[in-house]
Amino acid sequence: MQPPRLPTADDIQRFIASSFPEREGGPGVIVEHATPERVRVRLPSRPEYLRPGQSVSGPAQMALADTVAWVHILASLGLEGAASVTSQLNINFLSRPAAVDLIGEGVLLKLGKSLAVTEVRLYSDGHPTPVAFATVTYAVRRHT
Amino acid sequence: MQPPRLPTADDIQRFIASSFPEREGGPGVIVEHATPERVRVRLPSRPEYLRPGQSVSGPAQMALADTVAWVHILASLGLEGAASVTSQLNINFLSRPAAVDLIGEGVLLKLGKSLAVTEVRLYSDGHPTPVAFATVTYAVRRHT
Amino acid sequence: MQPPRLPTADDIQRFIASSFPEREGGPGVIVEHATPERVRVRLPSRPEYLRPGQSVSGPAQMALADTVAWVHILASLGLEGAASVTSQLNINFLSRPAAVDLIGEGVLLKLGKSLAVTEVRLYSDGHPTPVAFATVTYAVRRHT
Amino acid sequence: MQPPRLPTADDIQRFIASSFPEREGGPGVIVEHATPERVRVRLPSRPEYLRPGQSVSGPAQMALADTVAWVHILASLGLEGAASVTSQLNINFLSRPAAVDLIGEGVLLKLGKSLAVTEVRLYSDGHPTPVAFATVTYAVRRHT
Repeated sequence: MQPPRLPTADDIQRFIASSFPEREGGPGVIVEHATPERVRVRLPSRPEYLRPGQSVSGPAQMALADTVAWVHILASLGLEGAASVTSQLNINFLSRPAAVDLIGEGVLLKLGKSLAVTEVRLYSDGHPTPVAFATVTYAVRRHT
Repeated sequence: MQPPRLPTADDIQRFIASSFPEREGGPGVIVEHATPERVRVRLPSRPEYLRPGQSVSGPAQMALADTVAWVHILASLGLEGAASVTSQLNINFLSRPAAVDLIGEGVLLKLGKSLAVTEVRLYSDGHPTPVAFATVTYAVRRHT
Repeated sequence: MQPPRLPTADDIQRFIASSFPEREGGPGVIVEHATPERVRVRLPSRPEYLRPGQSVSGPAQMALADTVAWVHILASLGLEGAASVTSQLNINFLSRPAAVDLIGEGVLLKLGKSLAVTEVRLYSDGHPTPVAFATVTYAVRRHT
Repeated sequence: MQPPRLPTADDIQRFIASSFPEREGGPGVIVEHATPERVRVRLPSRPEYLRPGQSVSGPAQMALADTVAWVHILASLGLEGAASVTSQLNINFLSRPAAVDLIGEGVLLKLGKSLAVTEVRLYSDGHPTPVAFATVTYAVRRHT
């Protein structure tokens, strides 16, 4: 029996679009890269993510970190892993993001039968040093 | 010299309303209780916080935990503590929230010169056991 | 069929003594209270746990927090839960402990089929405010 | 004025030996590499660090992660940073270590005026995948 084909970044992008219809128009996250080894997701700069002083808000950063880890599970297990749920998230905010797109890059630390742990770095687009660093644990659930 | 009067829950509610104008109409969080000892903040149920399956999303839970800790600093230091920024947040998701208002209750673990640590429990309104548990560290900054 | 009798603090103390023979003589931890609701464990003051300046070291604090969570699983599931392993630990160090016994108090936040989450407060014996605060997640494993 | 010469791995090793005299004989940690960019510390395999089943204990892993972060501060600030104290530590245990030396590798995520954040990976010596992953925050204190 063949293992299921793993979804591409485009497959995951389409899956997100169909699962989480944007209520207020405009783009949500963009899945730029998605393999079992590495994931890269972009959060386009939007006024509602900004804090006074023109920086991306902490909650928007946490939401992106959580999304990166979830995309990583899809890229590693296939779309049937979509029912997995976050069980724990730890984030260190390192410096103030610029008012530009926020980039989240994930590396899978562990993919076990019941738990997946992903390390996520967040960057302001075009800047070399991370603005935040997170570890995210998902309880893995497979649709069958 | 008198110490500054600490703000009430109503003071903080007005301060939030003036600092973070809602872009899309409708209510944001409601500060129900705010003293140096204890804080209680309500996130009214809104369609955009819900996940498929009718549960409050993880990012909405994290945003509320972060807000509870920030309100706690205002309640303890006064509104001049509003420039404090989150330096670290750890959250354990314990069970699936119901599709009702989410309640965040905070207890201050430490209020130092440079760091404040708050323990936050999140509940589905009317339910006795917490759906999530967070510890939130703020770097304390005072406007002068 | 009867549910298994849950172990008492004394049962757990004896189990620890037989499972982890002290190599260098002298007392290890003392289980003072152990029910499914609440656990209290004492780490007696010993020279090797002290840091210069006469304070209990960070690693000794982390070891106690981890032990409190494990004792909580034994108190809740019975001794057959002893093979459970720590999957994640988060600790905030709040203030410098005194050079006295360290007390760890645990409250179970979640006891699921696969994960148990415990909140742990550490105190210097006889002092009212916690010196550290931890959340500890165990992957639950039952001997059969 | 010249900036102070930063200490080498050997300097730090000697400083540890003089600051924390081993009480029970035998080697403690070995600082194998220490620059502002990267730190590598070895915890030699010793019977008292082992758990039943011949694995390095969780507390020994946490102690090594904490030490790696502290060595990183010395390597970055000089020995006058030795009074810095851990303010927060988060660790995910990924897989069971082998009963061999444990290796800790650190990368500095942030070195601010008041906080330093280090990412630490722990490996069983000779094995390619990490057994644990930690982020450690220190409150920076400089002797003057």
